Amino acid sequence: MTTPLLSDSEGPADALPVCLTSPTVAILGSGDFARSLALRLVASGVRVVVGSRCVNRIPSGLFPDAVELRNQEGAVSQAVCLVFMALFPEHYCSLLGLQSALAGKVLVDVSNAAEMNIHGLSNAERLAELFPNSLVVKGFNTVSTWELQTGAHDGSRQVLICSNSTEGKKKVVQLARQMGFHPVDMGGLSAAREIEVAPLRLLPSWSGPVVVTFLLFLFFYGYGVLLGILLPFLAQGHNAFYRLALDLVNESLPAVALVTLALVYFPGLFAAWLQLWSGTKYRRFPSWLDNWLQRRKQLGLLSFLGAALHGVYSLCLPLRRISLHRIVNTIFIGLVCDLKCLTTLGVWRSELYLSCGVLGLGVLSLLAVTSLPSVGNTLNWREFTFVQSGLGYIALTLSIMHTLFFGWDFAFHIEAYPFYMPPSYLLAVVLPCIVLVCRCFLLLPCIFTRLTRIRRGWESKRNCPHDGKRLM
Amino acid sequence: MTTPLLSDSEGPADALPVCLTSPTVAILGSGDFARSLALRLVASGVRVVVGSRCVNRIPSGLFPDAVELRNQEGAVSQAVCLVFMALFPEHYCSLLGLQSALAGKVLVDVSNAAEMNIHGLSNAERLAELFPNSLVVKGFNTVSTWELQTGAHDGSRQVLICSNSTEGKKKVVQLARQMGFHPVDMGGLSAAREIEVAPLRLLPSWSGPVVVTFLLFLFFYGYGVLLGILLPFLAQGHNAFYRLALDLVNESLPAVALVTLALVYFPGLFAAWLQLWSGTKYRRFPSWLDNWLQRRKQLGLLSFLGAALHGVYSLCLPLRRISLHRIVNTIFIGLVCDLKCLTTLGVWRSELYLSCGVLGLGVLSLLAVTSLPSVGNTLNWREFTFVQSGLGYIALTLSIMHTLFFGWDFAFHIEAYPFYMPPSYLLAVVLPCIVLVCRCFLLLPCIFTRLTRIRRGWESKRNCPHDGKRLM
Amino acid sequence: MTTPLLSDSEGPADALPVCLTSPTVAILGSGDFARSLALRLVASGVRVVVGSRCVNRIPSGLFPDAVELRNQEGAVSQAVCLVFMALFPEHYCSLLGLQSALAGKVLVDVSNAAEMNIHGLSNAERLAELFPNSLVVKGFNTVSTWELQTGAHDGSRQVLICSNSTEGKKKVVQLARQMGFHPVDMGGLSAAREIEVAPLRLLPSWSGPVVVTFLLFLFFYGYGVLLGILLPFLAQGHNAFYRLALDLVNESLPAVALVTLALVYFPGLFAAWLQLWSGTKYRRFPSWLDNWLQRRKQLGLLSFLGAALHGVYSLCLPLRRISLHRIVNTIFIGLVCDLKCLTTLGVWRSELYLSCGVLGLGVLSLLAVTSLPSVGNTLNWREFTFVQSGLGYIALTLSIMHTLFFGWDFAFHIEAYPFYMPPSYLLAVVLPCIVLVCRCFLLLPCIFTRLTRIRRGWESKRNCPHDGKRLM
Repeated sequence: MTTPLLSDSEGPADALPVCLTSPTVAILGSGDFARSLALRLVASGVRVVVGSRCVNRIPSGLFPDAVELRNQEGAVSQAVCLVFMALFPEHYCSLLGLQSALAGKVLVDVSNAAEMNIHGLSNAERLAELFPNSLVVKGFNTVSTWELQTGAHDGSRQVLICSNSTEGKKKVVQLARQMGFHPVDMGGLSAAREIEVAPLRLLPSWSGPVVVTFLLFLFFYGYGVLLGILLPFLAQGHNAFYRLALDLVNESLPAVALVTLALVYFPGLFAAWLQLWSGTKYRRFPSWLDNWLQRRKQLGLLSFLGAALHGVYSLCLPLRRISLHRIVNTIFIGLVCDLKCLTTLGVWRSELYLSCGVLGLGVLSLLAVTSLPSVGNTLNWREFTFVQSGLGYIALTLSIMHTLFFGWDFAFHIEAYPFYMPPSYLLAVVLPCIVLVCRCFLLLPCIFTRLTRIRRGWESKRNCPHDGKRLM
Repeated sequence: MTTPLLSDSEGPADALPVCLTSPTVAILGSGDFARSLALRLVASGVRVVVGSRCVNRIPSGLFPDAVELRNQEGAVSQAVCLVFMALFPEHYCSLLGLQSALAGKVLVDVSNAAEMNIHGLSNAERLAELFPNSLVVKGFNTVSTWELQTGAHDGSRQVLICSNSTEGKKKVVQLARQMGFHPVDMGGLSAAREIEVAPLRLLPSWSGPVVVTFLLFLFFYGYGVLLGILLPFLAQGHNAFYRLALDLVNESLPAVALVTLALVYFPGLFAAWLQLWSGTKYRRFPSWLDNWLQRRKQLGLLSFLGAALHGVYSLCLPLRRISLHRIVNTIFIGLVCDLKCLTTLGVWRSELYLSCGVLGLGVLSLLAVTSLPSVGNTLNWREFTFVQSGLGYIALTLSIMHTLFFGWDFAFHIEAYPFYMPPSYLLAVVLPCIVLVCRCFLLLPCIFTRLTRIRRGWESKRNCPHDGKRLM
Repeated sequence: MTTPLLSDSEGPADALPVCLTSPTVAILGSGDFARSLALRLVASGVRVVVGSRCVNRIPSGLFPDAVELRNQEGAVSQAVCLVFMALFPEHYCSLLGLQSALAGKVLVDVSNAAEMNIHGLSNAERLAELFPNSLVVKGFNTVSTWELQTGAHDGSRQVLICSNSTEGKKKVVQLARQMGFHPVDMGGLSAAREIEVAPLRLLPSWSGPVVVTFLLFLFFYGYGVLLGILLPFLAQGHNAFYRLALDLVNESLPAVALVTLALVYFPGLFAAWLQLWSGTKYRRFPSWLDNWLQRRKQLGLLSFLGAALHGVYSLCLPLRRISLHRIVNTIFIGLVCDLKCLTTLGVWRSELYLSCGVLGLGVLSLLAVTSLPSVGNTLNWREFTFVQSGLGYIALTLSIMHTLFFGWDFAFHIEAYPFYMPPSYLLAVVLPCIVLVCRCFLLLPCIFTRLTRIRRGWESKRNCPHDGKRLM
């Protein structure tokens, strides 16, 4: 595949030539990755030869029978054009002896970076330095041995590829397609650094939202402990520490969920106001706002998690030992008071806040489902917006109503403010209300039309001295 | 890529030639879409030049550095073969000056329709009229800026493409592949109309089922209000309006869920009987039946939603203020009666209807999970049928048992029929029972074998005068 | 497309040539599959002619208008290179008359096997025998008519293809791509056997785990019946048979879920110890261990299912008739005792085991979500391990704590051991504890480092007499 002629005649075969003309592919190394790679290649109809330093040591059956086992020299010599380097990068140098044999061949570097921040060259670049006459291509390191063995069942697994050799890239891309992967060209070999680090990343897009949610939880939980346990204990020596385990968590979770949900819709409003104020959409948002906007999905899912847990916790309440205790108390001690409090209003209240809660959670779970990649992919942009924004605000409204109905009668009794501090649900409901109000403002005709025009490309004169023609 | 020679030499590169030989791609427009498009193209290793009327107005950093900013003339002149028209269609005419510069080049129309029903030509067709010497291709409008920026992570996002120029189509398809999308050829430019409307659709397949479910809910809710609140209030002045919020909803939801679930399996039975009666499967079903059959998934999911909500509502019952009230009553007033009613039968009843309910909901949720695209894709047809039909009928049976056990002893007391009207759950259980009975009939050997033969292609003589050979 | 010249000139067109040069494709057969195939082909811009024995019998509108209907001879004569055999294999022979017409053309066999274990040749191989001069390709049988009609929306549906003719395979692969499918080359025609059986498989990877889980359930349920119902009944004539329906199920489910969850992590530990003991990772695991390791996902999901059902069942408890009964009893008969038992310890206990349970279930559901294909695909290996292993062990720990807290005070009363048999939750908690302890051992520095070195390729001397260089 080194002469243009050959490569031409192979062209028509789309992704297949490699297997049709079946040029043997060599794999240097006999580890898990080498083994899985060989399995997949064979399954894709490619002839594979594995080169290992101690061949006789490889247990029979470790590799499929179709695979030929040779020492490294033999393997390289058999490879028509492609050689996978399935060794740890620190052993690359040990192959310098094969330099001439590898000349003109495509070396695929499948190694990962040792740690997140690479100092100096990437493995692929070092390999290229060691074998200047070979075409070094970075790739397949983002694919796990497990995916190699099982096969990306929906053929959707991306294989990031980069190289300075277009010829080499071309061959690897074809092979990747044939193996049922989805090759993505990342450009020149300098991109290898990024590709080698990719497998080390640990949910980067989640860290921020998780931290925020966790801090919120700490705040509300701490506030609850102070207000509901410590102060009463210090003041009246009333011991309620058992509430730490469940009650307080169940008090904090809804607050966290509510605030987080508000944080999902806050940046959008902020962006809108920014556009209105600057009178154009061509001014970039500050980066912190951009980041925030990109984390909305994660925030939303965390909010859903909190809400769901709150739901389950609440449903657990009647199961608790203490609840039986309370009923008994109600009946003997607190009966009169309770039946007194049991006004129709009280009943209505409980009915309403429960149904608002259930419905809110229901809508939130719809949102969560549509945020699944496979579901979201089936939605067009309008549907996505309808679900995420439309249903989202409905969920927010229902949650707020849930909170307000819950706190209804308490809110107006002085007993609700022991030690002159408001109950946590009042703190939690502030931001969501602000968000909701701002949103309503944006729906005012005058503002709405202006915003739509801006989003459609219109700009207030001060921004564009040019003639009226707008660009999308 | 205008000469066969070039195109030949590009062939082998599979999806890569555009980037290997790196012909610059031009984008006219500097809006969000243009920006996202540029980002994605650069990420895919394509050289991009953006043409804007007021270049100096574009804030630095809006586009990646790799992107060259020029005025429109300059951009077009640099583009080797591909030009993206990222303007609003109403501004196409403003580019007439570039007609000669654009001649022979591929113009990609990425615009959406303004409203659902297009009058006259589609944007792409109008563009083709304006630039008769260019190869106009419709595409990428179904992809959102968001998807362009993040990249279709599972490389599965479809890009609908149509054009009268096979040459142009070819180039755009290659580019789409390279960008990690999944191009789908929709045929000639006349298909542009459909493609331009696609992004405006709002869950077309859901409207029908949602309406049906909603009407069912209205019916059962109204019936409940009449029977459980209005009549008692008018007759005995017994005030139970607080039940509107939660009780009645929780009474109606299961009824809706049950009937909807029956509606999922009804059309299938209908189709089977139709085939049995006509003795062939080559007669098409009436279109209403076809539509119904295609909406079963949505109906099933709505039924699941209803059932799930019913479950949560029911679990909320003990949390209600009123329930405490009831317990107290039970103990003081109704105690004797209650302990009397508390026969072993009563206990068994409650145990059974609860467990049937839980199991039914469990099976339904399995169905819901398998209806997720990514899960369904991993099932072969037999597995899919086993889950959807087999488990589906189990869920239906369990739900019916749930209802019957629930209504068991009530059903035979005269108190269950106040004002001589049956309770709603009795109404709800009728259709499901019919479905179940019909289904059982279909399992009778005689009918079953005949149906299988018909489905395998056999036909009763009157349908096919020809010799015995059957086609699949 | 039979001359290299033609095929060359088609090459560059990537997946499109078939439609660009639009060589008509023929479909023999007029059944559902033929119809859906035609629909999809037309939608993909391919010219289609359908050949049927009784054309006049085909109802108008059964096929799209773009499709031409001919008798079989006519259809075959029109087909440039591709002919789909959409007949039942038993009718292949009836086409022998067309042998000459079909010579040199690609015949695509889309048939499934009649039963799981094929005796003799596969359909495709028999077809190849009947038409020795045609290029027989196996394919598309794994795609259902439904998928053909709706289109694999995320273009990820795999089409398994095999053939002895590379030329034929090439054409079919191109066509499959064009239709939006993901062709996978399975090698020579001998692979047809496997491909034809694929659609008949019924969740092969689930059978094992389901059986195990079911047996576990039977054991715990039986044990519960014996200990909780039969023996009391026989000994004290105490009738508690009503507990069969819900109580006992809810007692067995958590036990099953807990043990199953332990079974998810057991094989991993076993493998680790094996590697430590043999001092190398190049020795293959026994096949039973391999199978077990590959079934962990299914076991985990079943465990989640059990846990979720247990959760719902438990939340149902207060709804039961009997619970009201119990409250009443508590208050009248058992009041004194109960209030006595109601120590702070008891309250703490109930609070803790409830919250552990809820949290455990929460973590498990996170695991379940990430095991969805579309979600898992977005995770890299490190993230996947973090979720599945890290969170998994947290879930296991929480579940164990849930069980221990639950059984806390009972465990130390003699009443907890009626008939000298331990309660089922004690049996259930044994294995999980063992797993947890073993896991902790593996975290001991000395063992941990050694294991990591082994996994990185290091081997104890006795395994490799060679020099120090290690292969990945």
